[in-house]
Amino acid sequence: MEAFNNIEGLRPFFEPKSVAIIGLSRKTGKGQHNALENLLDYGYKGRIYPINPNATEILGVKVYPSIKDVEGPVDLAVLVTPRSQVPMHVRNCAEKGIKCITIVTQGFTDAGDAEGTNLFGEILETADAHGCRILGPNSFGSANAFFKFGSSFARVTMQPNPVGLICQSGGLFNGLSEFSFVGKAIDVGNICNIDFADCLEYFEHDPEVKVIVLHIEGMPEVPRFLKVASRVSRQKPIVAIKTGKSEQAARAAQSHTGSLAGKNEIWDAALKQAGIITVNSLEELVDTTRVLCMLPPVRKADVCVVTFSGGTAIMALDGLRDSSLQAGSLSPSTLSELKKIAPPWLPIGNPVDYWPMVMGSDDRLKMTEDIFKIILKDDKFGSLLFIQIIHDAAQSHEIIHFLNKLVSQYPDKPIVAALVGPYGAECVKELQTEGRILAFHAPERAAQALVRSFQYAQAHPEC
Amino acid sequence: MEAFNNIEGLRPFFEPKSVAIIGLSRKTGKGQHNALENLLDYGYKGRIYPINPNATEILGVKVYPSIKDVEGPVDLAVLVTPRSQVPMHVRNCAEKGIKCITIVTQGFTDAGDAEGTNLFGEILETADAHGCRILGPNSFGSANAFFKFGSSFARVTMQPNPVGLICQSGGLFNGLSEFSFVGKAIDVGNICNIDFADCLEYFEHDPEVKVIVLHIEGMPEVPRFLKVASRVSRQKPIVAIKTGKSEQAARAAQSHTGSLAGKNEIWDAALKQAGIITVNSLEELVDTTRVLCMLPPVRKADVCVVTFSGGTAIMALDGLRDSSLQAGSLSPSTLSELKKIAPPWLPIGNPVDYWPMVMGSDDRLKMTEDIFKIILKDDKFGSLLFIQIIHDAAQSHEIIHFLNKLVSQYPDKPIVAALVGPYGAECVKELQTEGRILAFHAPERAAQALVRSFQYAQAHPEC
Repeated sequence: MEAFNNIEGLRPFFEPKSVAIIGLSRKTGKGQHNALENLLDYGYKGRIYPINPNATEILGVKVYPSIKDVEGPVDLAVLVTPRSQVPMHVRNCAEKGIKCITIVTQGFTDAGDAEGTNLFGEILETADAHGCRILGPNSFGSANAFFKFGSSFARVTMQPNPVGLICQSGGLFNGLSEFSFVGKAIDVGNICNIDFADCLEYFEHDPEVKVIVLHIEGMPEVPRFLKVASRVSRQKPIVAIKTGKSEQAARAAQSHTGSLAGKNEIWDAALKQAGIITVNSLEELVDTTRVLCMLPPVRKADVCVVTFSGGTAIMALDGLRDSSLQAGSLSPSTLSELKKIAPPWLPIGNPVDYWPMVMGSDDRLKMTEDIFKIILKDDKFGSLLFIQIIHDAAQSHEIIHFLNKLVSQYPDKPIVAALVGPYGAECVKELQTEGRILAFHAPERAAQALVRSFQYAQAHPEC
Repeated sequence: MEAFNNIEGLRPFFEPKSVAIIGLSRKTGKGQHNALENLLDYGYKGRIYPINPNATEILGVKVYPSIKDVEGPVDLAVLVTPRSQVPMHVRNCAEKGIKCITIVTQGFTDAGDAEGTNLFGEILETADAHGCRILGPNSFGSANAFFKFGSSFARVTMQPNPVGLICQSGGLFNGLSEFSFVGKAIDVGNICNIDFADCLEYFEHDPEVKVIVLHIEGMPEVPRFLKVASRVSRQKPIVAIKTGKSEQAARAAQSHTGSLAGKNEIWDAALKQAGIITVNSLEELVDTTRVLCMLPPVRKADVCVVTFSGGTAIMALDGLRDSSLQAGSLSPSTLSELKKIAPPWLPIGNPVDYWPMVMGSDDRLKMTEDIFKIILKDDKFGSLLFIQIIHDAAQSHEIIHFLNKLVSQYPDKPIVAALVGPYGAECVKELQTEGRILAFHAPERAAQALVRSFQYAQAHPEC
């Protein structure tokens, strides 16, 4: 019943047929962060009811003085009014039969004052009496690239990718640096009656979501969350960052979303036990999500490092330190095949430093392909980490072509690339836009991505 | 005497009046990595003597069959011949009176075979007998953007920045991802008779080098290195990455540069004692070098975090964890001035979450500037960490302008920016190219950069 409540009950946050924006500003254009303008730009197909007593029309859309003046049914109401007016608007919405309400307004449990707490209490009372689901307060709302919908005043990048994000921060929601691959997002904010567990349950049954990402500052009902997460993580990978780790950060989290951060060690252990992959920084969160989305899981402890540069390969090995992954020795047959190609003085091992093997060749690319074929058929290795120095645009183009060919020929082998050198960053960016090859700027990050994938596969041998 | 030997003795590696390239390939153009072509493109002004018995001219430059056929004096010889011929060429160079020789060729102590060891012994003997300085073997050579010189077959990015790199890897030398700010570089490779200590001594007396970066796999004479480093680190910041930390990585380092990696803990403690800032990954190396180059040192333990996004500010605080930096409380006067601007419900602390302060304003930029003025005159804080979500190119432009104004008004305050959001990466890149503002994609990296700067200032109160 609870699951049904969440699947059908939360649907209007992701696929609303109609949405009312209560307290919508008349200001539009550059830098005004107007939610209506965003909806129109996304190409949202549902009905939009802007509510503002001081306007009759914004961007060509009819404006209503109050939610009571809207004739038709409303799937979702988004509130952006001053905090003192929020309880009244919630009551008006509830009386109109609106079941889903997003409260963007801040200043409730996060304010830490008596008035904020009282106002929050009033909201909760109305919600209980009318069976309303309240997202927030202090929430950026929800977004769904598959439905061309986003309720936030902040413009999000709409890319229908199979990642569902549940967060407690506009910064995360808003699509951090390399995070534009999030297809659906929901910001639970200060958590009135939509918690992490509810959203997890929604994504559990959402066929468009393949990987779930959590940004947790804190939550009221940890045991229920862990129970649901344990079930969901057996079906879809869940990656989580728990922030507020230092004492100061925990205090800031309390004033940010009214969350009690809780002890780090307990959180870490509990999340792990629930089958969740935990990370410690924003970059790790992005990298881990990308590896779980893009590659088949790493199922064997041995990784083969194939490199153009010995020094950076050693950094990659340092990146495997304290993990269960290792660069184990080559199989005897692989070793003997490589020996045939290599100069006689070259010690061959793992990392495979292949520059001395190709430097004398007239067709270095062909030679490189031969080397990769030999290595990729070595079943000992569950994954391959490729390191190359990229000098210029021409070489970048060549490597992208080479990698694309490689992953189409070996779709079952997880392959990551660390592309360094003067043109490495550009090459990585191009590959990210293409979205077929998983590449990083730094060898340690490429290594860590494989470590996370192996962690996931070990925690979930059934997947 | 030793210092003089290194200052004058190593100068030809950085400022050669003439250079011979022995074993230069006739192949030129895209993907051929021709050292002569590179030198011509850099605009090197010295004399170049290509040596190749099978050519008379390459790229319009006269080619000599042997070094013996060169009439004039030669400051530096670069050897790229097969390993068996290297000792002979070293002898020929020595007999011609060449004092500086770079050996690019691999396959000596790194090969791990008897022949490699014997050949290495022959080279050393000649060097000792003639007083030659040998860079490498297995070295990418040296480069100096201030002199438009680079001896490597790999094209380097020439930017006359005040960073001197001493490394043991072509990957590093070659300018890793964000590393194009290296002004001078030398790859000691397998270390014949030019060691880290010698190069440190050279950079110690080089007014064009303000920050020294070390990439260490291992070295034969650790005590001398530590002695020199202890002295140099009191004059210029030294940042070091010691690689080969896992057992496997240590083995790989041995076959890469013939280095004995040594115990991590001992290295870490020794480097720290010598006043060196140590880092654990390539990205940290780049970030730390940038903060030491670009900002005045962080001298106070309190950092003020000013943010548009509460959630990412908490990540920044997590990034300060386990460090001596902290986001201490605001001074009473700062607090009371901010209270005048903020909505009454807003709890004000550090991080300063300023979005609620500006959201109602008609001139958000002016209001933001006022907030920063209030905070920057609070002497309690030794640094400022600014976090902003960048939505698009227009906002990126605005923020860049804002930050440039800020750092010119407060040149003595270390300010770093974490710019996240859909357009954050582009904004960071633009700032990197401009080179005036230190910015990162991720809040944790911005926080870590300040931590490193504070570490440096604490270790070197005299600087």
